[in-house]
Amino acid sequence: MKSNIAVIGMGVMGSCLALNMANHNFKVAVYNYTPDLTEAFVKNHPHDNITAFYDVKSLAEGMTRPRKFFIMVTAGKAVDSVIESLLPYLDKEDIIMDGGNSFFKDTQRRYEYVTSKGFKYFGVGVSGGEEGALNGPALMPGGNKESYKEIKEVLEAISAKAEDGKPCCTYIGENGAGHYVKMVHNGIEYADMQLIAEAYLLLKHVGGYENSQIADIFNEWNQGELNSFLIGITADIFKEKDDLGEGELVDKILDSAGQKGTGRWTSLAALEQGVNTSIMTSACNARNISSFYEKRQQLAASGLKKVLPVEIDADFVEDVRRSLYTAKIAAYAQGLALYKSASETYDWHLNLGDIASIFRAGCIIQARFLNNITNAYQQEPNLDNLIENEFFAEKVKNNQQCLRKIVAKAILAGVPVPAFANAISYIDGLSTKVVGANLIQAQRDYFGAHTYKRIDREGSFHHQWQKHFDR
Amino acid sequence: MKSNIAVIGMGVMGSCLALNMANHNFKVAVYNYTPDLTEAFVKNHPHDNITAFYDVKSLAEGMTRPRKFFIMVTAGKAVDSVIESLLPYLDKEDIIMDGGNSFFKDTQRRYEYVTSKGFKYFGVGVSGGEEGALNGPALMPGGNKESYKEIKEVLEAISAKAEDGKPCCTYIGENGAGHYVKMVHNGIEYADMQLIAEAYLLLKHVGGYENSQIADIFNEWNQGELNSFLIGITADIFKEKDDLGEGELVDKILDSAGQKGTGRWTSLAALEQGVNTSIMTSACNARNISSFYEKRQQLAASGLKKVLPVEIDADFVEDVRRSLYTAKIAAYAQGLALYKSASETYDWHLNLGDIASIFRAGCIIQARFLNNITNAYQQEPNLDNLIENEFFAEKVKNNQQCLRKIVAKAILAGVPVPAFANAISYIDGLSTKVVGANLIQAQRDYFGAHTYKRIDREGSFHHQWQKHFDR
Repeated sequence: MKSNIAVIGMGVMGSCLALNMANHNFKVAVYNYTPDLTEAFVKNHPHDNITAFYDVKSLAEGMTRPRKFFIMVTAGKAVDSVIESLLPYLDKEDIIMDGGNSFFKDTQRRYEYVTSKGFKYFGVGVSGGEEGALNGPALMPGGNKESYKEIKEVLEAISAKAEDGKPCCTYIGENGAGHYVKMVHNGIEYADMQLIAEAYLLLKHVGGYENSQIADIFNEWNQGELNSFLIGITADIFKEKDDLGEGELVDKILDSAGQKGTGRWTSLAALEQGVNTSIMTSACNARNISSFYEKRQQLAASGLKKVLPVEIDADFVEDVRRSLYTAKIAAYAQGLALYKSASETYDWHLNLGDIASIFRAGCIIQARFLNNITNAYQQEPNLDNLIENEFFAEKVKNNQQCLRKIVAKAILAGVPVPAFANAISYIDGLSTKVVGANLIQAQRDYFGAHTYKRIDREGSFHHQWQKHFDR
Repeated sequence: MKSNIAVIGMGVMGSCLALNMANHNFKVAVYNYTPDLTEAFVKNHPHDNITAFYDVKSLAEGMTRPRKFFIMVTAGKAVDSVIESLLPYLDKEDIIMDGGNSFFKDTQRRYEYVTSKGFKYFGVGVSGGEEGALNGPALMPGGNKESYKEIKEVLEAISAKAEDGKPCCTYIGENGAGHYVKMVHNGIEYADMQLIAEAYLLLKHVGGYENSQIADIFNEWNQGELNSFLIGITADIFKEKDDLGEGELVDKILDSAGQKGTGRWTSLAALEQGVNTSIMTSACNARNISSFYEKRQQLAASGLKKVLPVEIDADFVEDVRRSLYTAKIAAYAQGLALYKSASETYDWHLNLGDIASIFRAGCIIQARFLNNITNAYQQEPNLDNLIENEFFAEKVKNNQQCLRKIVAKAILAGVPVPAFANAISYIDGLSTKVVGANLIQAQRDYFGAHTYKRIDREGSFHHQWQKHFDR
């Protein structure tokens, strides 16, 4: 009995995906560069649908055509090594998939390379961690479109299913499109987490709420339009007792965040494309600043900080909730604007509604409001910015005064809310008639003869600026 | 009579630099790839110290040893072409300098290449535009240290002089250090300009001041600690009458800013190094958003925007001034932190005091407070962050409540002030004990088993998080 698909790389994620495939009745070949992981895997997870292989030649011979290899190894050089090891055994139409967190430009390069050899290549974004890999991740496959029909069945079968039963997997686009979409997903995840952290700071340090109250607040929020995986686990976190002492665990965790660097990729890509992702970037920066833990304690103790009193009214918690929802809309608007720009730059023909729809389950950023985003792009596939859609425009219109009040209070009180603040700046930047760029153009023309345009006639103008004041 | 130095590239900047050198009694050879620009230059600017050449061989033969070539052509492939054309005629110890706006990684590559051929290479940051090139720019030479003695005299002679008479030119560091320092200079310039634009928006749209009043306000500010080239020209700009109609010219300039992309390089480099340059990045983003002029007008007219009333008190203008000064400190603190990080990454041994001191004249960001920055780094060469220096810490401490009030007012009133807002977020991020990263670490451990550290004991911990609420 030959195998339908091979999983290469028997780390945690590869093992979970292999089991997920086997549980869905696919015959799965498993292989690892070193035999130990493969041996341990088949010993710990004996399964009729799983066959272990210990060399690439036997692996290739044990598979049905076209062969489908799903690589799940550490992103970087290991992916190139696996590809090289497979090439001698491939036939035309065989398919290599890379399910790791590869940088999309690497995937573009590998796609060109493997395609030039006559084979097919996919970069598959996989979100949902270990639990998702085993029980249903969100999958973002990008690669040779005409071969997608060969892998559609298995990818859709193992993927998470949204509430309406639809699989959280769709063909994304050519070459690096799948990994690009996953990259921005991670950027949005950073923003989501930072916004929730800022809401927490506001509830605790401005509102004065206890952990147990904050747990209940997040749980209540999770019943409404903010319903999402991250809000749900946040409610749980505030209830969790310290396993090594008194009180709640959250208070014992060092206030210094780690990052693996992939969140930063989105900001880099956005800068290259000239797209504003200020909220995601502020989330990267906030993690970075948090890691200067000693410096922060020292400067806090130095008396440098001078805050101002703020008044808390009865609407405070509801104002924070509306602020969080509005800032979240702004963060997703930035992510979706980046997709739109990348789609044009790389000729990917991204379907933004489909992308939003596959984020509805399986992945870290799964959230009820992704249904509304899906609807928005189904109504208007070429929507320039999410906040222009009627549904979201109404939300932004009705909630933005809360966001203004909350950000103003946080800034007066000295609570750092860079993501919230960049959210209102983004909304204001987009919807304000005058943003001061006329002065910047005047300055550029004054010192560099860069010229400017006028509001009342066509053309570019240069002016002989005069010195009116002594300096 | 042989020439002491050659200027290659007879565009505006090259021509001005050649004249500047000739005016300082250096014998200057001039050359351009096409003869037309050279012919026009020597015809329009006859000068005893200038000799025109029309082929590279004659140029090389007409120079004293070691030869010094100052390339002033468009950044990019043209620089590589000029280098290739020079190589066959070079002797050991001959020096090539690139004075264009080259990306520092290109300069690193060219430095390696030219050095490997046995010659010397410098990337020279040049700031000050046409006027600076002619009468004294700020110069940032980076390259083979042992050869700096050969070019020191001419570079110092043509550079601007600070109030204390010191030349605005100093050896920066190996390979791409000079162009790196110039790049961040441009990032700071973007931030400076955006902060001034936001102060203008506040004065006009929150304070309700007229252009002539704003001109007087900026002129008054220019007499004090904000004294700088950019504040000075801003005062002039608001006085300038429209040359094609009624009223002031600033009101007729289209509110849509251009950029050449070099400002963005700083943000990219900062992200790569994990340094927070939120104020500079917000300036890039603001120019970007401003360029969606039609979209902004359309969204502004749609009624999406809902603002809140704010009260203006007698201190308003002074509060804006103090806010601008404080935000400017934060922007420079970010730029200097980036220098410190790059110095370590690239082993450049940057002297931050020297860098601040050469920005004091000649360049766009020249400002009185650069004397204070110079002093700060002379006192503490290894200062981690500018706001830790006693002088600046006092300023930040005394002025930050103004910045809080002004940003809060702007956000309530719907005036986009992303650079001001990121400045207070940066200051708060650096000087606040708790920034919410404990929650982010809890979330990461919950969904990805990323582990966390504790406040009360050493080591990394993973917790079995429980579900406390139905979802």
